[in-house]
Amino acid sequence: MSSDVLATLVPQPVSASARPGSLALPAQVGIWRDDGAAAAADLLTIELSRATGLRFAPAAREAAQIVLHSDGDSGEHYRIEIDERRASISGSPAGLIHGVYTLRQLLPAANWRAAPLPGVAWNLPACLIEDRPRFGWRGCMLDTARHFSPKQTILRFVDLLAMHHFNRLHLHLTDDQGWRVEIKAFPKLTEVGSHRANTGLGFAVSATEPHDGTPHGGYYTQDDLREIVAYAAARGIIVMPEIELPGHARALIAAYPEFGCLPDEPVDVGTYFGISRDLVNPLPHTIAALETIFEELLTIFPSPWIHVGGDEAPLERWRDSPAIRAHIASLGLPDAEAMRTWFTAHFAEFLNARGRRLVGWDEIIHYGGLTPSSVIMSWRGEKGGMKAAQEGYDVLMAPVFPTYFDYAQDEGADEPLSIGQSVLLEDVYAYEPSARWPDKASFDKVLGVQCQLWREVILDEAHLEYMAFPRVCALAEVAWSETRDDFAAFRQRLAHHLARLDAYGVNYRPLAGPRPWQQGGAGRKAYQPRFNLKEALANLDQWAESGEPPAEHLAD
Amino acid sequence: MSSDVLATLVPQPVSASARPGSLALPAQVGIWRDDGAAAAADLLTIELSRATGLRFAPAAREAAQIVLHSDGDSGEHYRIEIDERRASISGSPAGLIHGVYTLRQLLPAANWRAAPLPGVAWNLPACLIEDRPRFGWRGCMLDTARHFSPKQTILRFVDLLAMHHFNRLHLHLTDDQGWRVEIKAFPKLTEVGSHRANTGLGFAVSATEPHDGTPHGGYYTQDDLREIVAYAAARGIIVMPEIELPGHARALIAAYPEFGCLPDEPVDVGTYFGISRDLVNPLPHTIAALETIFEELLTIFPSPWIHVGGDEAPLERWRDSPAIRAHIASLGLPDAEAMRTWFTAHFAEFLNARGRRLVGWDEIIHYGGLTPSSVIMSWRGEKGGMKAAQEGYDVLMAPVFPTYFDYAQDEGADEPLSIGQSVLLEDVYAYEPSARWPDKASFDKVLGVQCQLWREVILDEAHLEYMAFPRVCALAEVAWSETRDDFAAFRQRLAHHLARLDAYGVNYRPLAGPRPWQQGGAGRKAYQPRFNLKEALANLDQWAESGEPPAEHLAD
Repeated sequence: MSSDVLATLVPQPVSASARPGSLALPAQVGIWRDDGAAAAADLLTIELSRATGLRFAPAAREAAQIVLHSDGDSGEHYRIEIDERRASISGSPAGLIHGVYTLRQLLPAANWRAAPLPGVAWNLPACLIEDRPRFGWRGCMLDTARHFSPKQTILRFVDLLAMHHFNRLHLHLTDDQGWRVEIKAFPKLTEVGSHRANTGLGFAVSATEPHDGTPHGGYYTQDDLREIVAYAAARGIIVMPEIELPGHARALIAAYPEFGCLPDEPVDVGTYFGISRDLVNPLPHTIAALETIFEELLTIFPSPWIHVGGDEAPLERWRDSPAIRAHIASLGLPDAEAMRTWFTAHFAEFLNARGRRLVGWDEIIHYGGLTPSSVIMSWRGEKGGMKAAQEGYDVLMAPVFPTYFDYAQDEGADEPLSIGQSVLLEDVYAYEPSARWPDKASFDKVLGVQCQLWREVILDEAHLEYMAFPRVCALAEVAWSETRDDFAAFRQRLAHHLARLDAYGVNYRPLAGPRPWQQGGAGRKAYQPRFNLKEALANLDQWAESGEPPAEHLAD
Repeated sequence: MSSDVLATLVPQPVSASARPGSLALPAQVGIWRDDGAAAAADLLTIELSRATGLRFAPAAREAAQIVLHSDGDSGEHYRIEIDERRASISGSPAGLIHGVYTLRQLLPAANWRAAPLPGVAWNLPACLIEDRPRFGWRGCMLDTARHFSPKQTILRFVDLLAMHHFNRLHLHLTDDQGWRVEIKAFPKLTEVGSHRANTGLGFAVSATEPHDGTPHGGYYTQDDLREIVAYAAARGIIVMPEIELPGHARALIAAYPEFGCLPDEPVDVGTYFGISRDLVNPLPHTIAALETIFEELLTIFPSPWIHVGGDEAPLERWRDSPAIRAHIASLGLPDAEAMRTWFTAHFAEFLNARGRRLVGWDEIIHYGGLTPSSVIMSWRGEKGGMKAAQEGYDVLMAPVFPTYFDYAQDEGADEPLSIGQSVLLEDVYAYEPSARWPDKASFDKVLGVQCQLWREVILDEAHLEYMAFPRVCALAEVAWSETRDDFAAFRQRLAHHLARLDAYGVNYRPLAGPRPWQQGGAGRKAYQPRFNLKEALANLDQWAESGEPPAEHLAD
């Protein structure tokens, strides 16, 4: 039995060896833990009490069935040793959390249900597992702006990321199409900015394309976000917020036109997609307001990293505005590009002064203005990341191919709505972040990898889970496992692992292709965008030479 | 403080009096409980550990902060006494569960979050509460057939019903538009019957009306349903399944045409709504198959009550079929009506022989064939229930007005998609089941009340929560509270109670009307059906004189 279970672990541990026998958990499970293992013991108790019906209580070390021991280190390593008398997990405090999730993979998949099924025997296979992650950043970005999900979806996603040993959740909280975080100093951000009248069908890029005629919106209160942060922290995940600036900020400008470039031409919250010409202005009253917004944000998110966006910001509105031109001159700066550098530098320093590090999309490396602790998120392929690493910055790899999970999982006509074709499960599994890297010293600046769930065309919760899974399982392996087996072997492990997703009720894409009712994509299949990923990548290579997107790619 | 909290309880307890002071729960909460209180103690531990961050562990009775004592009775009564040293809940084992939920209403609303918020003090107001329900059946029906929700939505709904002291969840698992329960003996029920190619927009009643072009479907595995049953049971709720027969069975007939009346004219799973002419046939091979289906169902659902549908079944296909006419004659029966009586009698006896009671919609009283233990669910107004009670049957009150929560909550144009106008929160609160009853003896046959969430036009999870809340809160009061205050006083209590729904992230209708993004109803607002509830009720009064719906109301 035991070797069977070890062959279903996702992500694959560094080493795992089966031993004879198994540990049958009794109705009353004794837990012994030291102080550093308190969080892991609480997590294990909370998660398994509900699912198994077993009762967990503190016990003396010798009598305990589960022993949790912290070595006090700062890493994420752990070691599981199970024999017929007890399961011992040792490791760093953070590593113990991963040990708990591996222990859950060793138990019957039913431990992912919300209540005990009759007749399940809660046995753990005797084994020895030694494990630690390859990358320190194993992230997933959820776009809550284009389509909003209620907080319970985010909490559920935290569970699913934790199941796969992820440790970062990047919440894209603001964009042209919506502002999702309550800011008490600026109530109109949510009163006005959190909803739109309408949504363009497919990837509409102008108001004249067909729209759905239905309002959409929602936002998280500060307490909702504090709850998400605490829930994620208990599961080993840091939540990094993103306030997108200076572009992709139309919802902010709709709420407060005085922070935009055309205060006499108010805009509405964006109803269509693409790259907007609307930018926040860099004038002092706006900078002061943004600082206030960030001050509130920092009270919600203890994350050492704060994402300020920075992608797809055409500077024409800064160039065209007499007031902004005058301000640029008053600062002694030569042009809008230099103002952009000032803007990034200002918030990099603002965050550093408060003990945080700025993170931005790779456009920001073009302008500079970064403090040494800043982190570049490479999305336009890998070149931005390479350039940043060579300049000495830490780097996160989030290249469109193969980490944008809004692209279809297959080229079949039965796939649901997607942004375009296609990022295969096999592509994700084959992703080797170091493969194209010029030298090892700069690759050492790569903190890790991250997948992206942009939501222009991911409309509801079921569709979100479909697009995420099982590609998240493959990326988990890229992010965690030092060595990987071939795709066929992974696929075989995954086929068993899917039973865990079934137990949790996840609407994943079956390996054989979508179920009949998964083929729609929230009723918008007729509006499938026609992006071809390979063409898009060629464009991106060109874009990556510049800080601004080509003018012909701007939305109305 | 304490009296403030008591004034926010929903449903209102029989008696509640404040005392001076409060109990501050410490970081380590000791629980003492006797054997009969084990389930309540487990529930309290599981639910509050996650939300509060406090640790709960068994303690000696004198040292415990929470004491749970069972009186071993069979009712649902409980008594809470809180002073500055401890909170004691005593009552029947089932009542203790309600006591736990009242205790949660006495705690800060944040106990409905998934993780502890910083700075919340877990204080309980000193008080004495004595409580018991007015009705033994406090139910809610979820239609999973017309639009499917994943199992996590059902689990969440269980939490919300338990919060409001409901004790029955009626799952409408099959209908013309979908079959949602895995039956191992008949795999095509889910392979074929669990999904449809398309859905008619609004309340389309023919294939020629506009459809959405999107497949829809899904089903619950037997393990999913066992999980729901166990989860609900731990929260004091019995799950009653419904297999709708002999009408509203097109999904079954699509999967197995040999169980229909026109085996040479196969049908697809229904894509539009209304009353279908398709019925299962009453021939021996079909009866045997249905028995097999019920046998499997009974292994999943321990519920003493099994709902077999029975509404809206026009008998013309039975009358028109030579094979069925011959079978009726061979049984020595005079006509299709007598066959219908035989059909009900057969399954009533089948269920009784297995220790269960048949429940059916009020049409079945017209035909008879009921065993004495059968239960009538009165939906076509109250007359069917009154007739059944006078004939000696137990009765459940589920009248369209005011318990059909697919009708709009208000007449405003800003309400989202609904089946028609309108069942106001005030209408629900004003519902007095005994008001129009002819005599007390027959009213004593009323087991309780139930609200219905039919889902022809309730398309997604957010819309479902909107239609349910806060009307469920008002029905909770009708079902539980022996005495009720006036609507203004209820509204005031409710305004505070909504903080609990906020903490749980419920998409309820605010008392002031829908939020901008709640006005759409899953993007189908343009297809709002035009039913006027008052006209519909006049129709129903006429229908209620007959077992069959008027021919002019049949769908294509």
